[in-house]
Amino acid sequence: MAIVNHMVQHFPLDLTFSALSDPTRRAILERLGQGSATISELAGPTGMSLTGLKKHVAILEEAELVSTEKRGRARHCRLGPRRLDDATDWIEAYRRSWEDRFARLDAIIERQKGASS
Amino acid sequence: MAIVNHMVQHFPLDLTFSALSDPTRRAILERLGQGSATISELAGPTGMSLTGLKKHVAILEEAELVSTEKRGRARHCRLGPRRLDDATDWIEAYRRSWEDRFARLDAIIERQKGASS
Repeated sequence: MAIVNHMVQHFPLDLTFSALSDPTRRAILERLGQGSATISELAGPTGMSLTGLKKHVAILEEAELVSTEKRGRARHCRLGPRRLDDATDWIEAYRRSWEDRFARLDAIIERQKGASS
Repeated sequence: MAIVNHMVQHFPLDLTFSALSDPTRRAILERLGQGSATISELAGPTGMSLTGLKKHVAILEEAELVSTEKRGRARHCRLGPRRLDDATDWIEAYRRSWEDRFARLDAIIERQKGASS
């Protein structure tokens, strides 16, 4: 299997996994899973500055995990069009190939046991 | 739901998702899913320097997704103890809560349809 040169990216998966690599951003997604919220409402429980929170929301927005809309003075956030399907697909494919490998190793061990008994 | 302050981390999930956010590192994991390999074998198809590749392997090692062992002059790499279970668990819990929310919204819409007819 060829290992692609990482200079030719930016894959959506990079943005997805990168967005998920921060606990504040995961918490924002979990919160928005309960319903949409303004930036102020998201910042409320964190003690984080609006500026700090806006940066996290911008990263989630770039990864298309969150959509925002300005209404009056408030920016409303909700879950975006990308639904982590690509992340799940990658992880699942990876786990399957890994499990297949162990299944093949098991089969080899079983055959060797059979040959030596 | 409280949004945790992101100053108090480093959660294993941060390392896992951060490790997965690079296509070279994902390719390394996919390659090691086929069987263990030395750093040179991993670098071979990429045209990447050994130094560059070692940095990626070190990040995967810190996230416990890869284990390495020095034998003679070669460093052998294989998949590490962490099996992306935590990443899958988080994504699945998140998707479930999201789907639950849509199910609840559907139920509300159905009730409103019933009330207005």
